[in-house]
Amino acid sequence: MKNYNTDKIEAFKQEHKNRARLLISCPDQPGIVAAISQFLSGYQANIIESNQYSTDPHGGEFFTRIVFELDDLSNKAEQLEADFQQVKDQFQMEVSFQYVNQIKKMAIFVSKEPHCLLELLWEWQSGDLVADISMVISNHETSREFVERLGIPFYYIPANKDVRKQVEEQQIKLLKEHDIDVIVLARYMQILTPTFVGTFNQQIINIHHSFLPAFIGAKPYERAYHRGVKLIGATSHYVTNDLDEGPIIEQDISRVDHRDNAAAMKKIGQSVERSVLARAVKWHLEDRILVYGNKTIVF
Amino acid sequence: MKNYNTDKIEAFKQEHKNRARLLISCPDQPGIVAAISQFLSGYQANIIESNQYSTDPHGGEFFTRIVFELDDLSNKAEQLEADFQQVKDQFQMEVSFQYVNQIKKMAIFVSKEPHCLLELLWEWQSGDLVADISMVISNHETSREFVERLGIPFYYIPANKDVRKQVEEQQIKLLKEHDIDVIVLARYMQILTPTFVGTFNQQIINIHHSFLPAFIGAKPYERAYHRGVKLIGATSHYVTNDLDEGPIIEQDISRVDHRDNAAAMKKIGQSVERSVLARAVKWHLEDRILVYGNKTIVF
Amino acid sequence: MKNYNTDKIEAFKQEHKNRARLLISCPDQPGIVAAISQFLSGYQANIIESNQYSTDPHGGEFFTRIVFELDDLSNKAEQLEADFQQVKDQFQMEVSFQYVNQIKKMAIFVSKEPHCLLELLWEWQSGDLVADISMVISNHETSREFVERLGIPFYYIPANKDVRKQVEEQQIKLLKEHDIDVIVLARYMQILTPTFVGTFNQQIINIHHSFLPAFIGAKPYERAYHRGVKLIGATSHYVTNDLDEGPIIEQDISRVDHRDNAAAMKKIGQSVERSVLARAVKWHLEDRILVYGNKTIVF
Amino acid sequence: MKNYNTDKIEAFKQEHKNRARLLISCPDQPGIVAAISQFLSGYQANIIESNQYSTDPHGGEFFTRIVFELDDLSNKAEQLEADFQQVKDQFQMEVSFQYVNQIKKMAIFVSKEPHCLLELLWEWQSGDLVADISMVISNHETSREFVERLGIPFYYIPANKDVRKQVEEQQIKLLKEHDIDVIVLARYMQILTPTFVGTFNQQIINIHHSFLPAFIGAKPYERAYHRGVKLIGATSHYVTNDLDEGPIIEQDISRVDHRDNAAAMKKIGQSVERSVLARAVKWHLEDRILVYGNKTIVF
Repeated sequence: MKNYNTDKIEAFKQEHKNRARLLISCPDQPGIVAAISQFLSGYQANIIESNQYSTDPHGGEFFTRIVFELDDLSNKAEQLEADFQQVKDQFQMEVSFQYVNQIKKMAIFVSKEPHCLLELLWEWQSGDLVADISMVISNHETSREFVERLGIPFYYIPANKDVRKQVEEQQIKLLKEHDIDVIVLARYMQILTPTFVGTFNQQIINIHHSFLPAFIGAKPYERAYHRGVKLIGATSHYVTNDLDEGPIIEQDISRVDHRDNAAAMKKIGQSVERSVLARAVKWHLEDRILVYGNKTIVF
Repeated sequence: MKNYNTDKIEAFKQEHKNRARLLISCPDQPGIVAAISQFLSGYQANIIESNQYSTDPHGGEFFTRIVFELDDLSNKAEQLEADFQQVKDQFQMEVSFQYVNQIKKMAIFVSKEPHCLLELLWEWQSGDLVADISMVISNHETSREFVERLGIPFYYIPANKDVRKQVEEQQIKLLKEHDIDVIVLARYMQILTPTFVGTFNQQIINIHHSFLPAFIGAKPYERAYHRGVKLIGATSHYVTNDLDEGPIIEQDISRVDHRDNAAAMKKIGQSVERSVLARAVKWHLEDRILVYGNKTIVF
Repeated sequence: MKNYNTDKIEAFKQEHKNRARLLISCPDQPGIVAAISQFLSGYQANIIESNQYSTDPHGGEFFTRIVFELDDLSNKAEQLEADFQQVKDQFQMEVSFQYVNQIKKMAIFVSKEPHCLLELLWEWQSGDLVADISMVISNHETSREFVERLGIPFYYIPANKDVRKQVEEQQIKLLKEHDIDVIVLARYMQILTPTFVGTFNQQIINIHHSFLPAFIGAKPYERAYHRGVKLIGATSHYVTNDLDEGPIIEQDISRVDHRDNAAAMKKIGQSVERSVLARAVKWHLEDRILVYGNKTIVF
Repeated sequence: MKNYNTDKIEAFKQEHKNRARLLISCPDQPGIVAAISQFLSGYQANIIESNQYSTDPHGGEFFTRIVFELDDLSNKAEQLEADFQQVKDQFQMEVSFQYVNQIKKMAIFVSKEPHCLLELLWEWQSGDLVADISMVISNHETSREFVERLGIPFYYIPANKDVRKQVEEQQIKLLKEHDIDVIVLARYMQILTPTFVGTFNQQIINIHHSFLPAFIGAKPYERAYHRGVKLIGATSHYVTNDLDEGPIIEQDISRVDHRDNAAAMKKIGQSVERSVLARAVKWHLEDRILVYGNKTIVF
């Protein structure tokens, strides 16, 4: 099926057909950068952008993200990866080659509140979010109309804790059938089981509100209001089995004051959620994020 | 004793000798603003600035801060306050008249880390913080030199939990002798007892770091680093008997990223603490803050 | 014709049927606030929100914006305004009563770049921008599809400097027929004549990029790039006959760095334009802006 | 003479005695990063931090800043630089080795307004600005007292356009005698001649206020106020012979509103100037800035 953005995405793929991103992590030691850059130089690859970081130059962990271009990349990719095996072994690297014209397949999960879904669709329409939005899955019908209007399949799967197992089986089947690369929980208010989370490790991105101080439990906006907080925040993170405790990708805040009641704070909070989630998803699609322990390196 | 800023403060007092701030809170109902403004109008007072807020126009609490000028204010103040009693009674108001040329007497408490103290002294030197800094009290000698260099008395009072009672008695005696109006805890790392807090209700301002999410307990910066937080914050609040849970006056954050280790985060956190505390103290000195329940209205 | 938001707007009108905004400017003198608040108090009106500002309490200009509620407002409005004439005369006031349930009729002008138009439509869909978007006028067909999809009439009026007079006559006719209250130039790249501007005084809102320093003339992003600017800004203002020199409503900036080439800077600039224009339009719709000389008071 | 920070700086030098920064620019082509990193790897140098940027991977200019550590650096530095000549020649590089323990010698020029000077001294006292502040030169006596109190020599050199030549000769003599590396114009309100500027190419850092739009000429704050600007900014740049037109290092803004008169705007502007200048100077001291044409690359 041809959706709203098919043409734009084809153009993007054509434009970036010779571009790849190389993500590496390994124990830090002298010579890593020399080995990688010499390897790419030997292939006549042109480094477009390069970032590196070490937790500690003496015995820490080394991370790098290198964007390069190579003529006739699609025909050379297999050999390139095979040849790199030697460098990889020498430095005990975790390596990932990402080819920019292989557009990531994305599924968006949403419940009733549409603000985060709408933001993602907006960024996608304007070309700032380059993804193949393969489906929207929701436990409510609310968002069907404007999702389908854009030519994106919409799956209504009612959910609650009694049918969680069956619901997740149905969802996993759908996601597998469409080779989904990344799942965005755009205010999806159902708990995911370890089975689901384990099936999509470091592929699920969530968004939730955040406060200073935290107001854990029910009615956080009410309580934030009664404490007179001056900042409302949002946090986007990868989903792990510790509820809302996975590696943080991005955070931001917005100022509030005494004139903002709990409802106004909620609205402001939703606005922060929109932009924080959109940035996190964008960085993921651009392969900017490396996960290390329970934290992220964002290049 | 004549300190560094004596001349500046005298000039300020002279310039504002006819200026007052009127702070009011009462149950909201129609006619409050009319009554107040009519009263001031009858005195030929000129309203310079006025702010109001109601938690709910239907049965909520009403707050206002009015700055006005009145010729020959010092001679008329007593009569003015007496005459206002009628309006006060009619609307069951909490009322406070603050005369701008009565400079507030401030005591600063500090332990080892001088960054917040230095910021306050800097703002005071530059004329942005108009106060009579009557003393600095510390449980360390670290800051004596640069405090005394500015002509401000420095009291070294060693403290720990075993001598808390005696230490606080000594402190309260000093504070009372000098008619201190406001106490700023500029990273003073001793717990205050309910006796001390109760003696200076809504007169003690504290500063502490804040995170999203919160990292309660030991080594917060270490743990924030390992979670990969992207924001470091600070909160300034009035001190109540609930540790760090009093009404929030001001908060702010600064961005950090994966390159910032725990030490760098701490430095960034200190920088946020400096500016947040300075703003909170400034607003207090300008009578901009009304406390309602456990929250503040900052006009 | 029923457009996308008709139901939402009806609900809003019903909810605010007793709410009005009173905007006043006059020479400052004692007694103004007393007179206004006493007048409203006599009508049993409940003041919800009130802001005031004086350029100088001694002989300056006084401005206020008061939001109030009054039972059965629609039936009392005429008498209310008539009775207020006395206060108005006494203080030589400019007065405007705005009734919140009288939704403003808005026309959006756009050329090729749709980013500002899309932002306004987004904010309107989400209920943050309460207006009756009566039409979109464009000198290009680019935006027709998504405008009409929302049920908003789209008028394609080709324009260039040779036919400016006829084009504007056609536009003015359309705008008058639909009683348009406010015209938003959402990147409309045609110059407006004094005739057009004079017909809609303080009713036309424009947006343009801004730099520090300014790069006046052609290719500003190219030149900003070659100067290595670190900030890209946008300014929204009321349109007067001095090109881009009318009263500023709102401004904002976004950081850029050496990695952003002219194209990237332009994209960032468009993002700032979106949010700055949306805020300016929102404030106008909420009657928050008073114009004084060539500046605005935004309450 | 021993000044306030002598001990801190000695500790810093000891801590960083094996650390260097390598700054390179050259025409971009494949193999540059490989050659540099292989060279450093051959010396067993450990790369701590590395940044690179290319204006265009196809025929653009390449820039890099590499921080590395090397045991016994002081004894190896000469040989290292000599050996690097080959890489330098191969790629036609501009190369600079900066040794972190060679603290830069700084002179601060100031006229009457002390806010920028005070900020620099504050950052220097707190250890955030690592420099040898060798002197303050002023055409006013205003700042002598607090400069000398910190053990920093203060030179009063009255200046005006009639004696410009003699004044600059005297200044240049002083600066040369003390091997000054960087000159900071902390609100020094005298024009510098091409002779002076040419003597210290890319070594002079200036700060000035900036507006959107620009208000060139006299009384900018007055005019900004009457236009109702919402942002006040500041720009720090290297000084060239085009007045205030040199490569921009850093910019920032602060929000203002209609309540801020010209005096308040000026105060806010000074606060922005303080922080913008401090950041620019810090980046210069850390060798983070490369100049290319009329723009800067800030790593």
